[in-house]
Amino acid sequence: MKRITGWFSCVVGTVVLMAGPMMAQKTSSMPRAFVNTLMPEPAQLTAGSGVLSIAPGFAIGTDKHDDARLNAAIAWTVRRLKMQTGLVIPEAPVSGNAAVVLTVDGPGEAIQGPDEDESYSLEVTPQGAHVHAATDVGAMHGLETLVQLVETDGQGSWIPAVTIQDSPRFRWRGLMIDCSRHFIPVDVILRTLQGMAAVKLNVFHWHLSDDQGFRIESRIFPKLTGEGSDGLYYTQEQAKEVVAYARNLGIRVVPEFDMPGHTTSWVVGYPELASAPGPFSIERRFGVFNPVFDPTKESTYQFIDQFVGEMATIFPDAYLHIGGDENNGVEWKQNPKIQAFAREHHLQGTAAIQAYFNQRLLPILEKHGKKMIGWDEVLTPGLPKDVMVQSWRGFDSLAAGAKQGYTGILSAGYYLDHMDTAADHYRVDPVPANSTLTPEQAARILGGEACMWSEYVDGRTIDSRIWPRTAAIAERLWSPQSVNNIDDMYRRLWVENLRLESLGLTQISHEDASLRALTGTEEIDPLKPLMEVLEPVDFDTRANYAEHHGVTTQSPLDNLVDALPPDPPSRHDFADMMSTYLQDPMGRPDLEAALTATFRSWMGGSAEMQLMSASPQLKMGLPRAQQLTELGTLGLEAVGYLSSGVPAPAGWKARQLALLDEAEKPVASTRFTVLKPLRDLVNEVK
Amino acid sequence: MKRITGWFSCVVGTVVLMAGPMMAQKTSSMPRAFVNTLMPEPAQLTAGSGVLSIAPGFAIGTDKHDDARLNAAIAWTVRRLKMQTGLVIPEAPVSGNAAVVLTVDGPGEAIQGPDEDESYSLEVTPQGAHVHAATDVGAMHGLETLVQLVETDGQGSWIPAVTIQDSPRFRWRGLMIDCSRHFIPVDVILRTLQGMAAVKLNVFHWHLSDDQGFRIESRIFPKLTGEGSDGLYYTQEQAKEVVAYARNLGIRVVPEFDMPGHTTSWVVGYPELASAPGPFSIERRFGVFNPVFDPTKESTYQFIDQFVGEMATIFPDAYLHIGGDENNGVEWKQNPKIQAFAREHHLQGTAAIQAYFNQRLLPILEKHGKKMIGWDEVLTPGLPKDVMVQSWRGFDSLAAGAKQGYTGILSAGYYLDHMDTAADHYRVDPVPANSTLTPEQAARILGGEACMWSEYVDGRTIDSRIWPRTAAIAERLWSPQSVNNIDDMYRRLWVENLRLESLGLTQISHEDASLRALTGTEEIDPLKPLMEVLEPVDFDTRANYAEHHGVTTQSPLDNLVDALPPDPPSRHDFADMMSTYLQDPMGRPDLEAALTATFRSWMGGSAEMQLMSASPQLKMGLPRAQQLTELGTLGLEAVGYLSSGVPAPAGWKARQLALLDEAEKPVASTRFTVLKPLRDLVNEVK
Repeated sequence: MKRITGWFSCVVGTVVLMAGPMMAQKTSSMPRAFVNTLMPEPAQLTAGSGVLSIAPGFAIGTDKHDDARLNAAIAWTVRRLKMQTGLVIPEAPVSGNAAVVLTVDGPGEAIQGPDEDESYSLEVTPQGAHVHAATDVGAMHGLETLVQLVETDGQGSWIPAVTIQDSPRFRWRGLMIDCSRHFIPVDVILRTLQGMAAVKLNVFHWHLSDDQGFRIESRIFPKLTGEGSDGLYYTQEQAKEVVAYARNLGIRVVPEFDMPGHTTSWVVGYPELASAPGPFSIERRFGVFNPVFDPTKESTYQFIDQFVGEMATIFPDAYLHIGGDENNGVEWKQNPKIQAFAREHHLQGTAAIQAYFNQRLLPILEKHGKKMIGWDEVLTPGLPKDVMVQSWRGFDSLAAGAKQGYTGILSAGYYLDHMDTAADHYRVDPVPANSTLTPEQAARILGGEACMWSEYVDGRTIDSRIWPRTAAIAERLWSPQSVNNIDDMYRRLWVENLRLESLGLTQISHEDASLRALTGTEEIDPLKPLMEVLEPVDFDTRANYAEHHGVTTQSPLDNLVDALPPDPPSRHDFADMMSTYLQDPMGRPDLEAALTATFRSWMGGSAEMQLMSASPQLKMGLPRAQQLTELGTLGLEAVGYLSSGVPAPAGWKARQLALLDEAEKPVASTRFTVLKPLRDLVNEVK
Repeated sequence: MKRITGWFSCVVGTVVLMAGPMMAQKTSSMPRAFVNTLMPEPAQLTAGSGVLSIAPGFAIGTDKHDDARLNAAIAWTVRRLKMQTGLVIPEAPVSGNAAVVLTVDGPGEAIQGPDEDESYSLEVTPQGAHVHAATDVGAMHGLETLVQLVETDGQGSWIPAVTIQDSPRFRWRGLMIDCSRHFIPVDVILRTLQGMAAVKLNVFHWHLSDDQGFRIESRIFPKLTGEGSDGLYYTQEQAKEVVAYARNLGIRVVPEFDMPGHTTSWVVGYPELASAPGPFSIERRFGVFNPVFDPTKESTYQFIDQFVGEMATIFPDAYLHIGGDENNGVEWKQNPKIQAFAREHHLQGTAAIQAYFNQRLLPILEKHGKKMIGWDEVLTPGLPKDVMVQSWRGFDSLAAGAKQGYTGILSAGYYLDHMDTAADHYRVDPVPANSTLTPEQAARILGGEACMWSEYVDGRTIDSRIWPRTAAIAERLWSPQSVNNIDDMYRRLWVENLRLESLGLTQISHEDASLRALTGTEEIDPLKPLMEVLEPVDFDTRANYAEHHGVTTQSPLDNLVDALPPDPPSRHDFADMMSTYLQDPMGRPDLEAALTATFRSWMGGSAEMQLMSASPQLKMGLPRAQQLTELGTLGLEAVGYLSSGVPAPAGWKARQLALLDEAEKPVASTRFTVLKPLRDLVNEVK
């Protein structure tokens, strides 16, 4: 767990049992009690007694030596076991007796789909571990669980005895990455896939085109990237590598080509696709723009036909995402030819024209063996029931589709760019407990997808925006609905965060590296107390700032806000500590001391101010340093009153609440993580 | 600069002027005096007065808009300027007036070679900057210098007024990476190339085959990787991407295919190439092994001919490295047919047979347009003078070649895996001042190459082994011989280290990430005082340990030693502080206080011991924690005696020297960085 400067060092030993996350660090060897740090939680788990030691000679055995994908999964598992334990373990599976025996009934579907059997069982006893799965993908999940079970202490490493029966609650558990607003390099995509597999996500939804850039090579239509990408795109070789890499991790790749709107980058090179005369240029701003395909020309559909055919040679998945969102209809309304066409075909309004367009897409997708998936807006009358809906509008929209017979997945509530907390995402359920859907209707909701839109994200910052919060979403989509304890989720999340880092993800190291770059020194410790209680503002606040300050795709993402991770440990932990303290302020001298130490650490210092003043980017956050000092004073005074039972002088409370109101306002696109508990604290003072 | 816990916080303001590296952090804006942090130092630099502000509207202009490579170099420069300054700057060059104007006489050679004109001039005045170069590559060097000149404070960013005339002392400035012992992923190679360009290195020597793995796809001979690589190799597409990427950074790519020895991975799939019957398997150990090509068979040369022809389609460089080192001759001696062949051709001994083999290679390389380069051993009688020698044996061997008329480059003294200091490498000169070579002979020494052999290096650790030390070697190869002040080199090296990190290199963040993985917590601060004064043992000590503990290519590189960077700041800085203190121990209360604080920080604590005890890998280093506590006591006592002028009691000095002797011994493949200054300290005590 990331420390909150000051109080961590004061609470070791006492509060630690309450604070939760710290407990989840490596357990001591005596007793080797089972501490569950699995994420996502398995469907059924029974702790056994004893442990399976990981000692020299440890190996994984299977009889399926001719299954290349399974062998790759074993090698990938072993590479991590080696790093965890420091032992040499053979990367190739062994025959016959082995500490871990893998029984896989068959490879599974040739092309993994939503009906893949992902279940597995895992039994660990002191004598050995046995993973049993119907398919390679199930086996991969079992191996990921095995890796998460490994514990280490100075005596060595072991796997606790457990019996697990596991299968996902939802069959579609995805992460969407927008690679158009900012291009995300292919090595970042590959390590993200590793992270996804670690938390049992199974769909990588690749948003490959939008107004701000066309990101995949087309050999038939080279001007798509030639004029629409600034040279930043994936080659077909790279895309195939991503698909193959994902397949070896049990992950499907669903490409998205957003149309008819969000298509500026297409029409830069091919203006004949557009509904306005052009010329067009790559969009640098963010928002909803006018360029839209011309749905009245046969040549538009011929183009799409050829393009989808080419993409089908790269992406074997049964689904192809056609976007379909946020078409503002402006160019259609301004084009007399299109309006005439609409009248002729009795298409009233933009939605009706788009429904026509979608109808025309269907046979094209079918011809190339693809099922259609699109955002809410594709749900127009007359669409066949095998079109799938991804809801960014919310559960009600999704449920309406399910009632009409459409399958769907939820993304509203899982937008990572909104800078919500892991807890916020965790509470969002694709089929809420109070849903009025019939079981048959509910079964049409296949799962959900976390969405990483990239207006304010690039290859350097994306890890810290995706992880670890996506692990909480992954658990919501995999684990039983009854797994919903927020405190326990965070306890395990901070452990998973370290496991994810060990894959090579940079969500932890990013902050320090950014601060070193901004300050030009390795001496960044003075900044830590402030950085630990700041996080990025929500999306709307940032977008509003961006709009008024000319921020575009070309603006560097190297500000203070870009260094900060969303939902840092301080948010949940400080609230937790405060609420416990407030239950009995006069009876918890331990927490009084911890809070006092924390507040003192907030009082800042000249080194902090000096570092921030020397950087144009950090300097914008200077008011936050001043505010934190004031919040520290507020905290010390409040705890003093509460712990002593002495009432505050007249006017004190009003002044503090005004201070908190002021601190709520965005500064340098940052916000404090600790204001609500502080408000609770002030309100408790008499 | 990385802090030495304890003393940094005590010395700000006073000792800082002496300590050097800290001065090199971002300078304050008043006065905006020029502080040279360039690395490598330019040949000629004159500081001007005033600065060129980097403000909105800043752009780079050139009239050569049709030069794609130059445009890529400008875009790459601008991307970094944007991150440095936080400003939006156009990535495409502008026409007409611009803050920076680039004049490039021509693109340079179609295929960059050692004769490329790399010179440039840079003039910065408050009105603008002008880069002038004969070629794209010269322009790239000028732009790199420009990026290094940028300074920032709270008021904004600027480039100080300077006049620079610059060209390299040596034309061949390389980095070799061994991708056989451990495979290095392609994204690591790409970011390494960025680092190389930043310090003006111009040759990436790619060691692609060795006993432990064959690392590049051959479509003619698919079993090379099919059976010789464990699936870890570069596809031809990837290799072409590396070559193109390097070219855009002004870097040549020289591939090495080591032969006739070091060829185990070839003969696994093609045993007919070997001099012994086989079968063979990929070598897992380290050292010199027997497998060697059969020089008597025509089919061997036909194979090499086809292979070199295929590789020539990927690697356009005029040079091809044929290795040629460490052939132990065992298989040749044991093969009667080869011995008969040798007698028949009057080839006496292994060296003579290898000379024959080399002679046979020459026309093959010539046929495919390649010049031969090899390690010292290729220098056998009768070779034509256009064969080039890379010396791992030393300057004498190199000079001997130069006297015979051979061109050569130096690598002895630049072996990064030896874990020498940056200062050690910096002192090694390809043409030492005391060389007895004539100017004509000296001119045959084209430069040198840092060598990153990868027995104990993998994709995770390699950045921290290459950087920042390679920047010191790059300076030795670029800058005038007179640039040789070690203190000043380190002052600039720690600044360059941060600039290199901002490219995405992980040499700084690696240590913390490793310690988090090993301890399973983010609370690693208690480990810092110990980690900051430890570094890896030298290569021989590690190799010796490896040999006696069965370490192979399959052993995980996740031990304490792998987390530690070589030559951390503590080594030079502590020695610097100590030697200053010892000049006048009773007259420097400031340094007495700083040293005392440092020694106190070494006294360890229970949190440190607890963290180390909980990890099998860190636990091996526990004796170091105990020793550091003892060294802290030693230091406190010694400073007490010296500063007070009180003599130590009888036997004290002997006990301390014994303690230092004990601390010199390797523990967990680590060594202390501070022992020599401590020995000096003890020896000064009366």
